[in-house]
Amino acid sequence: METLIQPKVLKGFRDFLPQQEILRSDLIEKLTHTYRSYGFVPIDTPVLEYAEILLRKSNGETEKQVFRFEDNGHRDVAMRFDLTVPFARFTAEHREELYFPFKRYHIAKVWRGEKPQAGRYREFVQCDFDTVGSDSASSDFEILSLMKSALNEIGVDNITIRMNNRSIFNRFLSKIGAAEKSEDVLRIVDKIAKVGSDEVKNELTEVLENEESASLILEYIVPKEDFYSTLKHIEELAGGESEDTQRMKDIYEMMKAAGIESTYILDPSITRGLDYYTGVVYETFLNDLPSIGSVCSGGRYDNLAGLYMKDKVPGVGASIGLDRLIAGLEQLGVTEQKGSYLDVEIYNLDPTLAIQYQKLASDLRKQGIAVEVFPDSKKIGQQYAVTDKKGISWGILMEKEDSEKGTFKLKNLKTREQIADIDVKKAVEVILKR
Amino acid sequence: METLIQPKVLKGFRDFLPQQEILRSDLIEKLTHTYRSYGFVPIDTPVLEYAEILLRKSNGETEKQVFRFEDNGHRDVAMRFDLTVPFARFTAEHREELYFPFKRYHIAKVWRGEKPQAGRYREFVQCDFDTVGSDSASSDFEILSLMKSALNEIGVDNITIRMNNRSIFNRFLSKIGAAEKSEDVLRIVDKIAKVGSDEVKNELTEVLENEESASLILEYIVPKEDFYSTLKHIEELAGGESEDTQRMKDIYEMMKAAGIESTYILDPSITRGLDYYTGVVYETFLNDLPSIGSVCSGGRYDNLAGLYMKDKVPGVGASIGLDRLIAGLEQLGVTEQKGSYLDVEIYNLDPTLAIQYQKLASDLRKQGIAVEVFPDSKKIGQQYAVTDKKGISWGILMEKEDSEKGTFKLKNLKTREQIADIDVKKAVEVILKR
Repeated sequence: METLIQPKVLKGFRDFLPQQEILRSDLIEKLTHTYRSYGFVPIDTPVLEYAEILLRKSNGETEKQVFRFEDNGHRDVAMRFDLTVPFARFTAEHREELYFPFKRYHIAKVWRGEKPQAGRYREFVQCDFDTVGSDSASSDFEILSLMKSALNEIGVDNITIRMNNRSIFNRFLSKIGAAEKSEDVLRIVDKIAKVGSDEVKNELTEVLENEESASLILEYIVPKEDFYSTLKHIEELAGGESEDTQRMKDIYEMMKAAGIESTYILDPSITRGLDYYTGVVYETFLNDLPSIGSVCSGGRYDNLAGLYMKDKVPGVGASIGLDRLIAGLEQLGVTEQKGSYLDVEIYNLDPTLAIQYQKLASDLRKQGIAVEVFPDSKKIGQQYAVTDKKGISWGILMEKEDSEKGTFKLKNLKTREQIADIDVKKAVEVILKR
Repeated sequence: METLIQPKVLKGFRDFLPQQEILRSDLIEKLTHTYRSYGFVPIDTPVLEYAEILLRKSNGETEKQVFRFEDNGHRDVAMRFDLTVPFARFTAEHREELYFPFKRYHIAKVWRGEKPQAGRYREFVQCDFDTVGSDSASSDFEILSLMKSALNEIGVDNITIRMNNRSIFNRFLSKIGAAEKSEDVLRIVDKIAKVGSDEVKNELTEVLENEESASLILEYIVPKEDFYSTLKHIEELAGGESEDTQRMKDIYEMMKAAGIESTYILDPSITRGLDYYTGVVYETFLNDLPSIGSVCSGGRYDNLAGLYMKDKVPGVGASIGLDRLIAGLEQLGVTEQKGSYLDVEIYNLDPTLAIQYQKLASDLRKQGIAVEVFPDSKKIGQQYAVTDKKGISWGILMEKEDSEKGTFKLKNLKTREQIADIDVKKAVEVILKR
């Protein structure tokens, strides 16, 4: 006999058992439905790509984390680590076949060899939606509105979306003579929620070699009491009105018209760190669990596919981190536990009725009922033990004398109440609550 | 300026543009719905696994094709090449958390470094469903019935499912003294549709060194006029009645009770080659395009997870090859071409109405309408050119004077008929055809 191999998954990777996978599927179906209702269409790209294509623009940190290898044809290949770089390559490769503005969603797995820790996995799902080929307040607003609608659709109502504008921030940095250090400043400011304002000020002072500039930046990033007073505050610090401040007003007026403005806060400390954003940026927090960080982030960029084509394609988008969101929902105890999609179990009381049980299942399915037959004639207690784990509402018990009459017993598995001598037509009415 | 990178995918890999991906999503949603209605539940497993786990049982051909590499932690890892081996590992690893019989579906990508050719890709989707932990005619029948239901659900009605039983075939081979050569015989017989019966006879004669045995095998594998006469024929050649022939009768009687028997043929030449099957096996052909081969195959096996655990877990399952099926449907010209999920486009006739357009979109979405606003105020001809590609049924035209009255024009984009002075309530009725 061969030695057994220990069955186990790689560190940082996970199996999903039915209850978990049903929850994930349900959430993805609801997100998909909402993305579609805003006019976003699906695309798909390969999991493996040329490493050169995926990694050219990345920083050293990404490079270290990526699953990269030489394939059997000696090509240098890598597994995608996000859905944005493949979308940039896709847009450039298919620009003649696409139309613009182009609005796509892509819900798929990505891989990063990060050090596994709580809530961090090496294989995880991103749920991206982007509009490319339009630099308009309308498309900024549409993404921001969809973020709220998508999270609402999956039952996540108590959220705050914190938005800011990188262009206004950059004008401000130029004005105080800190433009050349903008990457450092963005990186430091991005950490404020984690390390606090004193530490941010220390680091800024060190980088800028100027305490006054550091103080001005700290003054800039603190929100005022409402949207317009914050906007006025940063507008003044940045040198006055411009297209970028007008853009923020337009977006906010659209939010007010749609009656959704209370979910959004103008928070000048939101920078999205070293990302490629050039306009509006945003992060989304669960009000009941802000500590898990942003569950949906994104922003506007002015040149999606610059590595692969000469034409500039501006765009705006966001991404829901499904795994972090689910971790949050589980911590809050608001996830539904569902064990199957079945309405009815037909119990196996008499093996000589196997054909009749299957015929009954077939008849019920034709009426839109999800049903299975317990395949083996085990003790009824053992059969109940299995179906309990599936959370089924209804059971059918049919013995020889029932079968001869063309009837059966229908049992409510929650209340244990039982209706005898029922036929298919009546049972369908009861099950579908007609 | 940096040099541009040529945007291109790896050989044998594909991008899916919206029209293709919408088709794929629609088919997968319908398959999923049908799998669920039979009581199958979803699971998910990692794309990457320890190479030892995936490859122990494989033959040399698989090993050559697999994407295998050393990860950054010096682990020998591989990308899954099917969904069956990961399911075996999963079943062994989680046997204490699962219940049996356990019915799972798994629709996901797998990777094989095959030589790319027409209809063969290095990245493709499998749609598997299996019942493990039951060795019953009921579960054999349920899989066979689901194969038909799932294909019917996606509009594929004109099919033939060819079934056979490896156990009866093995009894027959023992009887004619060819049991030791059974692997070779199965491999040769499996090719009959491709190479013809003369070539099969030649190869069998060579392998068995016996022309009489070769003739007997050829006699065995030719179907008779109907199910029972074929069964009687192979039963006699195999040495008479046994559990395996009774099993085939039970399955067929269930098919008759459900009124679906005309789709199924007992074809003793179906062997599934070198696969691990031990009982019933089957393949599915499009009657209008048999040349593309089986679009859904599978069978019963007696020991799923033998490499990873001592207990034997019998099972039965099937897999739909989505890519081959879509290639077939496209060849037959029966696929639907859908460019988006939108009901309505709100055209951008006046940039000063951007806020009103977004409010209208928000109001329509609340009524269950899928709608977008064209974000840029381009010439109306350019806007129509984009929305034509999305196949949208309705357009909304709202100018300043409409907006002031709280109305708009609703245009049927197919017939070009237009209703003026309509409001949200009335428009929703027209669009949803209430």
